[in-house]
Amino acid sequence: MKVILSEPFTNGWVVNIIGLASDEPLWRRVGLRKRIGIIGAGTAGLHLGLYLRQHDVDVTLFTDRRPAEYRGLRLLNTVAHHAVTVDREIALGVDHWPTDAFGYFGHYYYVGAKPEPLRCYGDYHAPSRAVDYRIYLPRLAEDFLERGGKVEYRLVKSSDILALSQRFDLMVVCTGKGAFGQLFPVEPAYTPFDRPQRALCVGIFKGIAQREPRRAVTWYASPGAGEMIEIPTTTFNGMQSALVIENIIGGDLEILAQVRYDDDPRAFLDLLLGKLRKHYPDCAERIDEREFDLANGPLDILQGGVTPTVRKSHVKLADGKLAVALGDLHVTVDPVLGQGANLASHAAVILGEEIVRQDVYDERFMEHVDRRRNDRVLGAHLWTNFMLTHLEALEPELSLLLKKVAQHRELADVFTDNFNYPERQWDCFASVERMHAWCESWLGETVGRESRADDGDRHAPPGHPAAEPDLGRAAGARAG
Amino acid sequence: MKVILSEPFTNGWVVNIIGLASDEPLWRRVGLRKRIGIIGAGTAGLHLGLYLRQHDVDVTLFTDRRPAEYRGLRLLNTVAHHAVTVDREIALGVDHWPTDAFGYFGHYYYVGAKPEPLRCYGDYHAPSRAVDYRIYLPRLAEDFLERGGKVEYRLVKSSDILALSQRFDLMVVCTGKGAFGQLFPVEPAYTPFDRPQRALCVGIFKGIAQREPRRAVTWYASPGAGEMIEIPTTTFNGMQSALVIENIIGGDLEILAQVRYDDDPRAFLDLLLGKLRKHYPDCAERIDEREFDLANGPLDILQGGVTPTVRKSHVKLADGKLAVALGDLHVTVDPVLGQGANLASHAAVILGEEIVRQDVYDERFMEHVDRRRNDRVLGAHLWTNFMLTHLEALEPELSLLLKKVAQHRELADVFTDNFNYPERQWDCFASVERMHAWCESWLGETVGRESRADDGDRHAPPGHPAAEPDLGRAAGARAG
Repeated sequence: MKVILSEPFTNGWVVNIIGLASDEPLWRRVGLRKRIGIIGAGTAGLHLGLYLRQHDVDVTLFTDRRPAEYRGLRLLNTVAHHAVTVDREIALGVDHWPTDAFGYFGHYYYVGAKPEPLRCYGDYHAPSRAVDYRIYLPRLAEDFLERGGKVEYRLVKSSDILALSQRFDLMVVCTGKGAFGQLFPVEPAYTPFDRPQRALCVGIFKGIAQREPRRAVTWYASPGAGEMIEIPTTTFNGMQSALVIENIIGGDLEILAQVRYDDDPRAFLDLLLGKLRKHYPDCAERIDEREFDLANGPLDILQGGVTPTVRKSHVKLADGKLAVALGDLHVTVDPVLGQGANLASHAAVILGEEIVRQDVYDERFMEHVDRRRNDRVLGAHLWTNFMLTHLEALEPELSLLLKKVAQHRELADVFTDNFNYPERQWDCFASVERMHAWCESWLGETVGRESRADDGDRHAPPGHPAAEPDLGRAAGARAG
Repeated sequence: MKVILSEPFTNGWVVNIIGLASDEPLWRRVGLRKRIGIIGAGTAGLHLGLYLRQHDVDVTLFTDRRPAEYRGLRLLNTVAHHAVTVDREIALGVDHWPTDAFGYFGHYYYVGAKPEPLRCYGDYHAPSRAVDYRIYLPRLAEDFLERGGKVEYRLVKSSDILALSQRFDLMVVCTGKGAFGQLFPVEPAYTPFDRPQRALCVGIFKGIAQREPRRAVTWYASPGAGEMIEIPTTTFNGMQSALVIENIIGGDLEILAQVRYDDDPRAFLDLLLGKLRKHYPDCAERIDEREFDLANGPLDILQGGVTPTVRKSHVKLADGKLAVALGDLHVTVDPVLGQGANLASHAAVILGEEIVRQDVYDERFMEHVDRRRNDRVLGAHLWTNFMLTHLEALEPELSLLLKKVAQHRELADVFTDNFNYPERQWDCFASVERMHAWCESWLGETVGRESRADDGDRHAPPGHPAAEPDLGRAAGARAG
């Protein structure tokens, strides 16, 4: 069959093809090895790199830290990996800290302070796990190298990216270092704050007894002062407790983000103990004051703040190729709900899947990536911002919901497990109507009516012990 | 366990609850019967209504047409239902025209005109079907009534919606009648045109022989003049041929949208026959000129134009409830690629699923609806607009792709079946790089290179007969 096409078009096109071919056009990569450059070796960069190596993609990671350096660094952060992230780690072949030994199984909640806080417990469907990133990140970096990943050890700056882009089909940026925040503009619609909403004091401490027999996070709120998350965390000297102390600016606890441990360790610890006794007594009660200190030494503490920010998911570089923002650089969440690393991992594996599935890395490519990653990523961001603003004075709609969570173990379990699925949590918190409807949908029609809310006490045993986990039930669920 | 909440909050909240309850708050519907109002009884409204009736939702449909009136109406449109839509009809229990008797199996393509057009054939994975909507819509309206759906026969106007909204938890609007276009603002980013891109002449004709033995659509393009789709369509007097004649404004065929059949039927038919012989000779050759006429009479023709438009997916009414745009009111596509009804059905069932799944119909509800429906709906819209603009002069990148489709049966099959999946088609057409990569991905690395493109002739038999469908192979695929 002879095909008639008007000659000028055909010729113009062929010239165009040849022109493109000499410049390695975007479509050359079909059937050839894809070449991806990743700037930043945190959870986002490593999970993406490991995923791509599983699919024979040529990956180069740029980082200024060699694996051996991590041991001597200041605490990087305190990060919970929920079961959805652990599942990804199992799939990536990097589950070096199996949850049966290193995991924890749910959340205790203590909301409010004296005379009696709202207390309850909820289970996950499967355990979460926290490992000190000074241990976690270099171990995964070694996995990446062993599996044929390339690493270039240098600090890459925003101004270097165009030169690097020539070597790759796609650049992925997942570090705040190097002024990359300037490359990816802020999305104003999703960025209501221009400053941190909490003054953070984050450390790993020894001398806090783990809860027995069931390891769990404890999540505290002291309305008007702040929140605290106590996370069983594996660090250099074993299982210790990370305290993520989130302090309301101008409140009684803000000082914890200002006083320096290094200036006078004993004074700092005494200050902290006093504040814990006042605001988070359940934690203070489990502290052996003689042993209480930073777990490994003076580098185990981090103070500062995080401005919740969403940036544009990608930019087009001057060479026509895209640079994609991943992890914290794309969406920075306050750590109050422990979502950051889970979002980074979620987004990294979706980006990896789309890099493997698609052949052209253009705007349409990013439509697929964003469509798949954004409901969870933005849901976590919006939910975290909601909690930051509504916990500050314990707004009435939030009070009512947390009261129901405390009264009904079903709700506490769902609420807790949804830390794995922040988009489902946002389905609950996105409006006052949703907060009511969510309770009703789990408890049935009658219980949800305010006039009958106390009927629900069949689920909420009277007194403190009953708010403890039902271990038999939880263990059964785990075995299933 | 006693929960201490500060009294002002609790009291304030209870008052608020009572206040809401008397106004039927959004969350009242949990566990109760949901009440949905649908304005418009086309494919979108009927598929949504039927889906909701399958799930015991209380649905009221507003339409100004009783089932018995359809028989006497002018042709409504000419609509292909692709296999994905037929599958939905089977699930809805309204597959009254099974495709083994009423369906067709693929597309013939004739692109270009004399001396020799680019010709080829591609198969669907499963048949499509076209039934005159004057038969289809009243039949489904009867199904809806039989299944407990309520219908109110009256013309609802945009200004009526707030009063209606009080009776329902959610209003869905899927009609252009009643000035609803004013309620839902146009999305400028997706609406590049302010007028129709083709002058349409659409009719159902008798006297055109169906292709034997394999029924199929024929899709024609006459660069500079327009496009035509010939669709085997079941109408009142059996299987006839719908001709969707899309005419470039100012071109040789525009007159077909202007001359009135009613003024002089013979003159109109002669004009049409002359234009078909010149621009679409393959169709003209199958016409028995003595029998050639509108299939059922002078109402079987429709002339006009469609401005491709995307409107905001929902608006908040003054009572705080949402009105959702569905079907053509949300996204109006030109019929050149036969996507409209398929998008309407796709979006309708997704909206139905979310109405059943969720309990609060707010902005978050719409985020889920839009996230699920928009890739296909907007993909079809963008692909259709791309084809309208690039077919006009048969732009070189489109020429090259269509040439490859004509040369390689694999590509023709994929291209044809993707009429079911316009988002996949848009994955191919969204950029020049994608058009190349798409061909390469289906044909393998070597064939895609321009220098070797003719290697592919093993797939493209030399001459006209070989461009006909491989019936054995296609039948085998159908049986599987």
